[in-house]
Amino acid sequence: MPGDPGNFRPAGPNAPPLALTMGDPAGIGLEIALKAWNARADRGLWPFVIFADPDSLRRCARSLSLDVPVEVVPDPVHGSSVFHHALPVVPLELQAAEQAGSPDPSNGAATIVSIERATAAVVAGEASAIVTNPIAKSVLYQTGFAFPGHTEFLGALAGKYEPGRRFVPVMLLVSEALKVVPLTVHIPLASVPAALSKTLIFETVRTLWQALQQDFAIASPRIAVTGLNPHAGESGTMGREECTIIAPAIEALRAEGLAVTGPHPADTLFHESARQTYDAAVAMYHDQALIPVKTLAFDSGVNVTLGLPFVRTSPDHGTAFDIAGKGCASPESLIQALRLAAMMAARRSAARGGSNAISGVRVEHASS
Amino acid sequence: MPGDPGNFRPAGPNAPPLALTMGDPAGIGLEIALKAWNARADRGLWPFVIFADPDSLRRCARSLSLDVPVEVVPDPVHGSSVFHHALPVVPLELQAAEQAGSPDPSNGAATIVSIERATAAVVAGEASAIVTNPIAKSVLYQTGFAFPGHTEFLGALAGKYEPGRRFVPVMLLVSEALKVVPLTVHIPLASVPAALSKTLIFETVRTLWQALQQDFAIASPRIAVTGLNPHAGESGTMGREECTIIAPAIEALRAEGLAVTGPHPADTLFHESARQTYDAAVAMYHDQALIPVKTLAFDSGVNVTLGLPFVRTSPDHGTAFDIAGKGCASPESLIQALRLAAMMAARRSAARGGSNAISGVRVEHASS
Repeated sequence: MPGDPGNFRPAGPNAPPLALTMGDPAGIGLEIALKAWNARADRGLWPFVIFADPDSLRRCARSLSLDVPVEVVPDPVHGSSVFHHALPVVPLELQAAEQAGSPDPSNGAATIVSIERATAAVVAGEASAIVTNPIAKSVLYQTGFAFPGHTEFLGALAGKYEPGRRFVPVMLLVSEALKVVPLTVHIPLASVPAALSKTLIFETVRTLWQALQQDFAIASPRIAVTGLNPHAGESGTMGREECTIIAPAIEALRAEGLAVTGPHPADTLFHESARQTYDAAVAMYHDQALIPVKTLAFDSGVNVTLGLPFVRTSPDHGTAFDIAGKGCASPESLIQALRLAAMMAARRSAARGGSNAISGVRVEHASS
Repeated sequence: MPGDPGNFRPAGPNAPPLALTMGDPAGIGLEIALKAWNARADRGLWPFVIFADPDSLRRCARSLSLDVPVEVVPDPVHGSSVFHHALPVVPLELQAAEQAGSPDPSNGAATIVSIERATAAVVAGEASAIVTNPIAKSVLYQTGFAFPGHTEFLGALAGKYEPGRRFVPVMLLVSEALKVVPLTVHIPLASVPAALSKTLIFETVRTLWQALQQDFAIASPRIAVTGLNPHAGESGTMGREECTIIAPAIEALRAEGLAVTGPHPADTLFHESARQTYDAAVAMYHDQALIPVKTLAFDSGVNVTLGLPFVRTSPDHGTAFDIAGKGCASPESLIQALRLAAMMAARRSAARGGSNAISGVRVEHASS
């Protein structure tokens, strides 16, 4: 299958590990990180290092009877040799001991520090890619966090390392059955029609196109775009956005030589035989993209952020406070996120001639 | 599985057949009707009679090399004994010979007459239920047809037989994996938020509840209702309709004793394990309901109209002019529509003590 992480490795035997954030320590992030480490051999995982409080990891392993040794390392690069016998941790400290299922805003700062340090590591070439565990926005908002979510925060962090360059992050959902991008994401449904524009479609499709070629090795990508309205508006009788925005944008992209089709009625675009006709779909809003991907692959979907100067993936579920601490959280989506991050980092690294430094960022660092 | 048509029969050995409309004769309706008849033994189909032009059926069978004898009957009741050796047809005449793939507005009148006569037959107790083949609204509009679709037309026809009573048709999609109702249907996405109301949710959920008990033999139905916005609004931070309309409506329905849950984030409501937690879902708009049902079961979904005084089902696809006349149309959805109509008619008939007359309609007729 195109996009199968398979046995890709980031950049040969000396490539640095992946940087995994801790996410909200009251959620399932620590548990699934421990379980993913346990599955490292069976699932052929490239080494990863977690940016977390070592004590919280040890408490979690003990309470869930997970046999996972935890070993502190000073930086990700030292994690590679540790990974085969212990979960390497770049340490940071929680303000309060985590309570599974009960998020504590006083740990919000540490949650953010974990993301910042993991990002710094990947920008410095000390890590091959960043994989993020789920955060709870409502908890972080109480600490002054001002971003709609992870994706926008990472876009801002990327901009910090390349002043003056604007990053437009694009959310791509990846499962074995389907790759799909929601054109608009975390906004009320009533705001969707006004948020659509030809410019947004241009930027999103071009970013997706480049990623399909670069990260998924699809030489001639085929992209299918949905309509906004029922039956894609049925020739304008049930909504006009297809006529005024979506179809003209598709036409312009086709004139650039991109194999883009649509606007397609969304309800008939995601069954098995329809999925054979494209490599990735672009949907107009959150549920139009997320319903098919989660209906088809609830436990193994991966959230990828395109448009950043580094690879970032994430499991496509939330903190799951309701099941945290119970031992029943599935690590499958995180495992797929780790595998996909390794594959994407390998391909980007190969395209750069094997360097681990981030494209477009000049980094002075011993390991780069 | 709840709702499996199984081997139900409408009302014992003497129950009348199902009434099948011809749909647009330039679409795939005639082809799938012929193919469904061919599958009658293998699929255990209750007899059905089609309201169509016998010559058009014979032309279609000949051109597609389908070995289906066609026999004219004066009324549906005479179709039962014919069904085992020929496809029984209550005749009507086309204005122009059909051209597969090229709809002709001059045949719009006959398309409508087919629906009217099939409805009259089921109201008169001459047929157990009505099953409709796809029509093309754009073609019928040219003939002065003034309804948004089949469903609303049937609601108006039902009202004709019961003056003064208002029928609120509810569209239910049924597949083996999922039963789901779109609260709003064929309106632009931008009009959806304003179209939501507590009254609409009350009427829809109550109609669905009754149907789950009466037609699907689910003694204690469980209904899951989606939110409108991403993550069901995430506590009002991404849209307020959950707080102001959907949640209060659900609360009121629960106070009536109905097992209704929600508002649920729509993207996590349709995967396999989520579907075990309810018998039917109510979604807020067309694509939110149609994407999961068609993603999971593209060829075998059935469209059911609840809230009418008779049973009506339909395949959940359109006229498919693009493949009409090519012989490749799948009859699966129509076969499932015929099976489900027979099952529903059987259950309603049993609830009425075996009479074939329509509930609430006084009918003077020899066979009732």
